[in-house]
Amino acid sequence: MKATQFFISTLKEAPADAEVRSHQLMMRAGMIKRLGAGIYNYMPMGLRVIRKVEAIIREEMNRAGAVELLMPVVQPAELWQETGRFDKMGPELLRVKDRHDRDFIIQPTSEEVVTDIARQELRSYKQLPKNFYHIQTKFRDERRPRFGVMRGREFTMKDAYSFDRDPAGAARSYEAMFAAYKRIFDRFGLAYRAVAADTGAIGGDLSHEFQVIADTGEDAIIYCPTSDYAANIELAEAVAPAGGRAAPTQALAKTPTPGKATCADVAALLGLPLTQTVKSLVLATDALDEAGDIVKSTVWLLLVRGDHDLNEVKAGKVEGLKGGFRFATPAEIDEHFGCKPGYLGPIGLKKPVQVIVDRTVAAMSDFVCGANDVDHHYTGANWGRDLPEPDVVADLRNVVEGDPSPDGKGVLAIQRGIEVGHVFYLGTKYSQAMNATYLDETGKPRLMEMGCYGIGVTRILGAAIEQNHDARGIIWPESIAPFTVVICPIGYDRSAEVKAAADALHDELRDAGIDVLLDDRGERPGAMFADWELIGVPHRVVISDRGLKDGKVEAQGRRDEAATAVPAAEIAAWVKGRVQV
Amino acid sequence: MKATQFFISTLKEAPADAEVRSHQLMMRAGMIKRLGAGIYNYMPMGLRVIRKVEAIIREEMNRAGAVELLMPVVQPAELWQETGRFDKMGPELLRVKDRHDRDFIIQPTSEEVVTDIARQELRSYKQLPKNFYHIQTKFRDERRPRFGVMRGREFTMKDAYSFDRDPAGAARSYEAMFAAYKRIFDRFGLAYRAVAADTGAIGGDLSHEFQVIADTGEDAIIYCPTSDYAANIELAEAVAPAGGRAAPTQALAKTPTPGKATCADVAALLGLPLTQTVKSLVLATDALDEAGDIVKSTVWLLLVRGDHDLNEVKAGKVEGLKGGFRFATPAEIDEHFGCKPGYLGPIGLKKPVQVIVDRTVAAMSDFVCGANDVDHHYTGANWGRDLPEPDVVADLRNVVEGDPSPDGKGVLAIQRGIEVGHVFYLGTKYSQAMNATYLDETGKPRLMEMGCYGIGVTRILGAAIEQNHDARGIIWPESIAPFTVVICPIGYDRSAEVKAAADALHDELRDAGIDVLLDDRGERPGAMFADWELIGVPHRVVISDRGLKDGKVEAQGRRDEAATAVPAAEIAAWVKGRVQV
Repeated sequence: MKATQFFISTLKEAPADAEVRSHQLMMRAGMIKRLGAGIYNYMPMGLRVIRKVEAIIREEMNRAGAVELLMPVVQPAELWQETGRFDKMGPELLRVKDRHDRDFIIQPTSEEVVTDIARQELRSYKQLPKNFYHIQTKFRDERRPRFGVMRGREFTMKDAYSFDRDPAGAARSYEAMFAAYKRIFDRFGLAYRAVAADTGAIGGDLSHEFQVIADTGEDAIIYCPTSDYAANIELAEAVAPAGGRAAPTQALAKTPTPGKATCADVAALLGLPLTQTVKSLVLATDALDEAGDIVKSTVWLLLVRGDHDLNEVKAGKVEGLKGGFRFATPAEIDEHFGCKPGYLGPIGLKKPVQVIVDRTVAAMSDFVCGANDVDHHYTGANWGRDLPEPDVVADLRNVVEGDPSPDGKGVLAIQRGIEVGHVFYLGTKYSQAMNATYLDETGKPRLMEMGCYGIGVTRILGAAIEQNHDARGIIWPESIAPFTVVICPIGYDRSAEVKAAADALHDELRDAGIDVLLDDRGERPGAMFADWELIGVPHRVVISDRGLKDGKVEAQGRRDEAATAVPAAEIAAWVKGRVQV
Repeated sequence: MKATQFFISTLKEAPADAEVRSHQLMMRAGMIKRLGAGIYNYMPMGLRVIRKVEAIIREEMNRAGAVELLMPVVQPAELWQETGRFDKMGPELLRVKDRHDRDFIIQPTSEEVVTDIARQELRSYKQLPKNFYHIQTKFRDERRPRFGVMRGREFTMKDAYSFDRDPAGAARSYEAMFAAYKRIFDRFGLAYRAVAADTGAIGGDLSHEFQVIADTGEDAIIYCPTSDYAANIELAEAVAPAGGRAAPTQALAKTPTPGKATCADVAALLGLPLTQTVKSLVLATDALDEAGDIVKSTVWLLLVRGDHDLNEVKAGKVEGLKGGFRFATPAEIDEHFGCKPGYLGPIGLKKPVQVIVDRTVAAMSDFVCGANDVDHHYTGANWGRDLPEPDVVADLRNVVEGDPSPDGKGVLAIQRGIEVGHVFYLGTKYSQAMNATYLDETGKPRLMEMGCYGIGVTRILGAAIEQNHDARGIIWPESIAPFTVVICPIGYDRSAEVKAAADALHDELRDAGIDVLLDDRGERPGAMFADWELIGVPHRVVISDRGLKDGKVEAQGRRDEAATAVPAAEIAAWVKGRVQV
């Protein structure tokens, strides 16, 4: 393709509202153009990347046996009322009434519609398993859209939904999708991790996020560099310290800590490591009657080490807290502890509470904790001596760098990631709500076991750029670059030799199936090179009269420090040898 | 592909609400599945057709130099307020408010957004011409969605928009699109006509509809079988009869015609041909003051031959009627004619009216018309003798079969068509409303000249089927068939020979780039054949033990009366020789 037949529009400066690098670079490279908050036009340069991303996804989904269909953007509310999501979902669900005042939604996801298709179309066990997917425009009315395509309102996703006879079948479908996702992300040419994630109420271990590694990512990825363990922060297990609890060496002592209401301040005052302190967190749970009124509240004390953070997902899995919890009110805290926060602890309670102790805290001795007396802490506290052995010990905290890996094969490290894919075992959540059954061999109706599998198509663009850019612009992986090779002739309109060489190279690469663009715009070399470095095309060939006099052209990869002089007669073969087709 | 890896779902009966053949067949063949009124899931079989249609459109649009981008489905109301369409468009425009109570619309078309892009991006004459297109989901809230994908609410369209410096450039862009459309429709393999259409207020002759020929089509296409003249009924010109007006031979006579209030009844009573009668149509126009109140109404008498129909689009082009007209009220008719409809005519008016005479009527002599007296008509009426020569003569009527072609190269014929494409010169309608200017060579801002070019992607499916089907099902043109070849093995699971032959043929055709499906479902032959005839795959190969014993397989085109026995060793070459790749 020639540049003048295409549309190239670059900007020197990114607009002020572009906060992150990928957003800035996509705007500057003319990939997207803002239409409204979180709503973008995909300009020709950006759309080429989207099409390449989609093609890879489609090929691998088809290879994995999934079947593509297309479900509508505008969906009737009735199905969403069947699952209760029409009411349960917040204002991020865009609701609309048609001319007859009937309710519709603009799809943020299609579980309801695909389950409706399945319950009508998949009637016999002979038709299972089946995996339907579509690549479609979605809308989620984010309260604060930001980061360009990373958290937009209108975006494109690939969503797949599997239907199986039983959990074992669903696990096989899940594994097939997991393998397909690995092929897809490998082909994208991005550094990524498949990270175990929490399955919430469904249980089981069939949930993985596909995270593109990027320092700017919003998510923490926990992994073990010496094994293949990887999990997100909600799930990554903090195992009990090796070696168990040391014997007490100190006596319990109530120590004045005036104005020191945090573990860090107390440790600094006392000249002790923060790892010697224990943090007290007070939660409450409410029992409701049938009318939804609170009939009884229970107060819980959770203990984690001073340098550790409570993991609320993990807390929510402890017996008694599974139904949901809240932080206790000041009145509840005063009632049970007789003290204000900052000095709370498990010793000398005014009124008994349920105590849940993190595994690490259960293995501590001679620890520091609040004394339930303002401006005072205990030092030298020991389990079984100064307070009873803990009743309930659980994994309550986020892991930290250096924690032992749960697989016993090393220690954990943390990196940042951007979630761009998710595979998830749904169980019968939707098939039950919508009565999606099939008839088994005995003619008995049984609920279908479902899985769902998403990839944020437009989000991939942002994540790829967050991972791959430099001061000059984007560095696209070859498989999803808008063009694979750009030919930059210097003096295309002036020099017959340059034009002939550029045209010949363009035609030969194009005929070899290489996605090549010839920049015939007549820009000055500096501006032309800057454009293509900003846009991030992986390979560039510069053809000039000066080079041709010596029988040479210059080739340079987007990550290369310098250009390579290549004999003009060999350049086509040279490029072909370096690109994927 | 194997059938068991795909999804095939056929129905014996079409649902009761499927009124037209294409809708019935798409439902029965499992191409679409209803989600709501005018909203369909595109099932895997239907989506394959859509993808082939899109691929052809994309190739030819790119070849014509158009550049693909993607504009959003959900669009902010502001741009639509700039052109006034947010208020002017009726309830077919689906309006929605976001969580911040801001107005948005679900796009039925994208002139506003593309003009907004153009006014920001195309700033210099050097950047023109430019043609942007997208293939996107649209929504039009039809009051009464029907005919399946032919008049749905959510549908897919290709929309292109050209931007030029001046009308001459716009005409070149128009011609390029016209040529691209011809290539596209040729490649679809459909019988179609490019039909000149009315340009309305813009004027000029740059508007064509691409009509797929089908007896069931809603539109009348006027064409000349002996030339390339084709126009829609609104536009097709009815030329004045050759030879002019004959001399009077009869005296004017007032004749009783009791109860005969139509031309047909009067002609029958008098034993005269209907072509001897003249029909009187009474219109009115209103002059408004600035507040929009009527200050003066004018009554018009339009005369067309008794067997002709008034063409309101043509009437709207006559001086005095251009601003819009209505049919006169009974009071207005009584005031001017002193008579009730059925007996009105141009002779002996109670109060003068503006008279507009169709070209054919102006050439009549000895004609019959109402006498402005209930139960009476005149016979033997003649211009210049019984009433003044007509002041205004115009083309007021729809053409009929046998009318002379306006190009003088034969007579007109009429056939039915389904509009699936439209190319249209927009002029500066949108660039003016949105101030989309570029700077010319002298640095002066000038409005861009625009054109718009649509193809109804999903509608193509319906139109193709209306044109190509028989009692057994759909007959897809090869280029857009869901599969090109289906292999039907009989006893695939029983016979190793059949399986080996079917698999080998499948692999060889697939490797040759032919879109082949092997039906491995294990259906009985009758049901299997019926499915593929319903689905409409162009080529079928049946492989059976009985045939293989004689070294033969059976090949049959979807339109063939009978199968052809082909030596098994030659079948791959035989198929390759018959299909496009």
